[in-house]
Amino acid sequence: MPRDKLSAMGRKVILDVDTGIDDAAAIILAMSHSDVEVLGVTCVSGNIHIDKVLRNTFRVLKVCDRLNVPVFRGADSPILSHNREPVCFHGNDGLGDCDWDEEIDTSLVQSEHAVNALIRLVNKFPGEITFVPLGPLTNIALALKMDPEFGKKVKDVFVMGGNYKGIGNVTMSGEFNFHSDPEAAFISLHGLRDVTVVPWETCMDADLPWATYDRWMKVETPKSRFVERVTSFWVVKRDFRYIRKGIRLCDLNAMAACINEAAILEKQKVYATIELCGTVTRGQMAVDWRSHSDETANVTVITKICTESVARMFEEALNG
Amino acid sequence: MPRDKLSAMGRKVILDVDTGIDDAAAIILAMSHSDVEVLGVTCVSGNIHIDKVLRNTFRVLKVCDRLNVPVFRGADSPILSHNREPVCFHGNDGLGDCDWDEEIDTSLVQSEHAVNALIRLVNKFPGEITFVPLGPLTNIALALKMDPEFGKKVKDVFVMGGNYKGIGNVTMSGEFNFHSDPEAAFISLHGLRDVTVVPWETCMDADLPWATYDRWMKVETPKSRFVERVTSFWVVKRDFRYIRKGIRLCDLNAMAACINEAAILEKQKVYATIELCGTVTRGQMAVDWRSHSDETANVTVITKICTESVARMFEEALNG
Amino acid sequence: MPRDKLSAMGRKVILDVDTGIDDAAAIILAMSHSDVEVLGVTCVSGNIHIDKVLRNTFRVLKVCDRLNVPVFRGADSPILSHNREPVCFHGNDGLGDCDWDEEIDTSLVQSEHAVNALIRLVNKFPGEITFVPLGPLTNIALALKMDPEFGKKVKDVFVMGGNYKGIGNVTMSGEFNFHSDPEAAFISLHGLRDVTVVPWETCMDADLPWATYDRWMKVETPKSRFVERVTSFWVVKRDFRYIRKGIRLCDLNAMAACINEAAILEKQKVYATIELCGTVTRGQMAVDWRSHSDETANVTVITKICTESVARMFEEALNG
Amino acid sequence: MPRDKLSAMGRKVILDVDTGIDDAAAIILAMSHSDVEVLGVTCVSGNIHIDKVLRNTFRVLKVCDRLNVPVFRGADSPILSHNREPVCFHGNDGLGDCDWDEEIDTSLVQSEHAVNALIRLVNKFPGEITFVPLGPLTNIALALKMDPEFGKKVKDVFVMGGNYKGIGNVTMSGEFNFHSDPEAAFISLHGLRDVTVVPWETCMDADLPWATYDRWMKVETPKSRFVERVTSFWVVKRDFRYIRKGIRLCDLNAMAACINEAAILEKQKVYATIELCGTVTRGQMAVDWRSHSDETANVTVITKICTESVARMFEEALNG
Repeated sequence: MPRDKLSAMGRKVILDVDTGIDDAAAIILAMSHSDVEVLGVTCVSGNIHIDKVLRNTFRVLKVCDRLNVPVFRGADSPILSHNREPVCFHGNDGLGDCDWDEEIDTSLVQSEHAVNALIRLVNKFPGEITFVPLGPLTNIALALKMDPEFGKKVKDVFVMGGNYKGIGNVTMSGEFNFHSDPEAAFISLHGLRDVTVVPWETCMDADLPWATYDRWMKVETPKSRFVERVTSFWVVKRDFRYIRKGIRLCDLNAMAACINEAAILEKQKVYATIELCGTVTRGQMAVDWRSHSDETANVTVITKICTESVARMFEEALNG
Repeated sequence: MPRDKLSAMGRKVILDVDTGIDDAAAIILAMSHSDVEVLGVTCVSGNIHIDKVLRNTFRVLKVCDRLNVPVFRGADSPILSHNREPVCFHGNDGLGDCDWDEEIDTSLVQSEHAVNALIRLVNKFPGEITFVPLGPLTNIALALKMDPEFGKKVKDVFVMGGNYKGIGNVTMSGEFNFHSDPEAAFISLHGLRDVTVVPWETCMDADLPWATYDRWMKVETPKSRFVERVTSFWVVKRDFRYIRKGIRLCDLNAMAACINEAAILEKQKVYATIELCGTVTRGQMAVDWRSHSDETANVTVITKICTESVARMFEEALNG
Repeated sequence: MPRDKLSAMGRKVILDVDTGIDDAAAIILAMSHSDVEVLGVTCVSGNIHIDKVLRNTFRVLKVCDRLNVPVFRGADSPILSHNREPVCFHGNDGLGDCDWDEEIDTSLVQSEHAVNALIRLVNKFPGEITFVPLGPLTNIALALKMDPEFGKKVKDVFVMGGNYKGIGNVTMSGEFNFHSDPEAAFISLHGLRDVTVVPWETCMDADLPWATYDRWMKVETPKSRFVERVTSFWVVKRDFRYIRKGIRLCDLNAMAACINEAAILEKQKVYATIELCGTVTRGQMAVDWRSHSDETANVTVITKICTESVARMFEEALNG
Repeated sequence: MPRDKLSAMGRKVILDVDTGIDDAAAIILAMSHSDVEVLGVTCVSGNIHIDKVLRNTFRVLKVCDRLNVPVFRGADSPILSHNREPVCFHGNDGLGDCDWDEEIDTSLVQSEHAVNALIRLVNKFPGEITFVPLGPLTNIALALKMDPEFGKKVKDVFVMGGNYKGIGNVTMSGEFNFHSDPEAAFISLHGLRDVTVVPWETCMDADLPWATYDRWMKVETPKSRFVERVTSFWVVKRDFRYIRKGIRLCDLNAMAACINEAAILEKQKVYATIELCGTVTRGQMAVDWRSHSDETANVTVITKICTESVARMFEEALNG
């Protein structure tokens, strides 16, 4: 079986998720990759409330036969905002509103708070852990505030979130994950050392063709059947405005970029920050392309994803 | 010995401090009052960095002979802001730059993080604990974000901070404690249930006359000698613009108001919030005096302090 | 007839109005004072749309028998905001919703735009003209932008508007005139030379007792009957929350302060600016009481009005 | 001589300029085109102070032998901002710092203010006039505020300014013309009817190759020699970072797009607004690509310019 050159041999990874459909794909990819050691999954409210996030996360781990991975409950609301209307893009349950017959036992959730777990693990393996945050960055931000040395002890971070051309998906200028908790995004971009971001516009250009999807479905494993189930919510609307060209699994791109450099076609290291006060731009990532500020570059923005690479990696994961 | 009618019999209290001169007075008052049970002291960076705050706090506890009270290290920077120039109003060490002969053993600091301690104690005594935050509200805010039920389990809160007439002491419109961490103040005012605030303008009108101070000094106890020492930094400047009228011990007012209702001459329950985005008003507390918003009153603002009552309580504390 | 010592002999004045009930009182005072030469009245949308403002203004001039004073049409909307819901405090017509039998001939309005008239007059009498803006400051701001030397050529300015303790009357923190056009207030405070402000809080403390009002009504002149008519809208609600103590004629205070220094009991020269970006404080006047900024004092804030003086001046005006 | 199909037969145009090097090119194009009737040129402070703008404008008109076109003095500062450091990209005099031997007689400037001229002309030819603003939009904004019907009476507008991918050229997120006076840009985009914008990113992709420039220079007319002179400032730095690929004459693109539709390769009608309050995004144009707001599309954004078309039009202009 051909395989991209691995960039991360035995990488220690913590996933931070608000498990919706694309988080599910990312989790499956991480869990199925022999060179990735997932130390834990921390959950956060995002697309849906954390109670549902926990349930969805266990569902994904179960299909991966990895219920042994510790799952932690994190923040149930962003640092400032109070009430967000739930986002329906992933269904009411956040995972495609399938008719699940089996109940999910959420008693497996760890008693330790996600933020404390993040701090504990990072202190246990300083300089060794890669974070892959796929939801609002609330947990990471709280960890950075609780432990001032936290940022220095993380190895690197692959975030799905933000935008770099001012294109929004929840407001005119705001991408969901960063806009959901702009203060957390701000704290994270400025507090972590080696942050790589897969922003919204990059994901817009990285739709996977439906032909690829159809090929995945032919794999016929429990994982492929699970993916078929949770994505059927979208698949029936293949002519829907935003998914006509293919299936957009934003979080999968960040996970793939973390695991394998081959998934990254173009990237640029820049100074970027988050607008916190704008009337229409609150939550937007602002990029200093021409060094107008005196700030040091703090973020690597992935501007082009190799969709073939992502597609192949995920197919292997479904097979694995 | 005459004594004001106690409003708080055996009140369980946690102090949250950035120990400067007036925090010291407040701590002495709390430690000396037989009806106050101090469960712990949580520290936060404010006037000075938390390392100095811890040292100063232990110094105060020692003179009160209360080194048995657990002291916790909390946040060392506000939620958003990075670098604040240190405030010199309390001296370089934050406690009047005295020549201390004895070293302070900070190994007594608890290993548990202040925020986790706050959460643990509030869950141990739900509905029983009174908070008295005397510095930036970072610790409280983090506790509110870590435990979504935290706010409901606190009994009540007496904060020194904010302003209600737009008068600032660090910027045109910003009072030090709230302006130091406006997001934390916002989270606290909106997340806690029963918040009483002693704002800056109230403290401006509550200077204790130098005659009172001189009376305290005649008490001649270790505590009074300690107060004499740490305040000498100001006393030598009695003709200094802001202390001509008397000594202003802001935090002492909040502590006194918490212990004894007699210290409160006027108060009003209003809806109040914190301006987070203003160009010149960032950090200002904004009060909805005429119910322009539809929000429920969330803050009791103390607008007048009984200085005689505060002076007498503190004299008793120095004697006690 | 006893008379306060005049501070303004033959003062050349331009009134800038959004004629509601209290503007009417201010206009009557100005028109009736022998030492005030009103060069013109410029109108602006405020309480009501400028079409109604013009009509109301002519009505007041007519009762003063001063239809010879030129009236100019100015801005019909604030610099930024679009649609404001009309304010009902002065009635639907902005002047107490009386049943006026006579029609008002608005053809008397000058063809010259108010802003051009302001510029022309100030260039004709450089250093001689006093402005009394009693509505949003849109016209003044536009004049300042059209003629960069405008501010230097105005003698002085008495504004009714703003606040100095963060108390609002249209939002939590916004006073109507300044909040209606914060950018115009900003431009005016920073562009004019000698600005005296009568803010909302000062007016709150300057209610004229109903006994005074009753004395006015006994004057029995066309002017007093006119005032009786337009204020009857309020008078019938004497027990209404905000007018229980007396009648609040904000604009009258600014006009009185302009004409006669005796109306000013306390004032303070400070640096003040307008918050343009705040979430809850947009439009608030922020005062630098303790020189936190390095800015030069630009505004004289009147903090206490002599209500007896105002009451007497107005009674004389009704008589005159 | 081949010629693109004209989209604007006998179009009545008013140019609003802060004449720098690229404004000069745009003016030459407009003045040389037989189907464009330039009713006037209104000047505004921008790259340089309006005094220099007037001088530069007359210099360009003189070389075009069109000193008969009326030139008006407009706003000398943006609506809010006070002091901007001069931008050196066009030289200290704003026009390439050439050694001009002849003096410029600025007594030709009209006595009427630019804003009043705009209003007068638009009322004289309602629905017939095209605006081409090439500097900060202060004059247009003031005209919109002085005459509430102004926006409806303008035929259409071609603006050079703003950005649509969040890329700035004076700040991280701000393009010079819009960032110089964000309030004016806001008022203009919301107050004018048919606005077409050529934003910064479009200009970044529309550099004209130096080969084209060299072809222009072979025309050998007074106009080409003038262009050679004023651009020599840049030409000597052909290897300079931003002009390596070619010469970037932003304003020329807007003028060309106005005159000839062939210059427009791609455009999109969207709702766009200006961020006024952002910490890092103030002045950014925000585009609602996915109709997150309920607002009606108000701006046509040109996203791709036909550089060949622009190059050919300008060559004809230099010849003409």
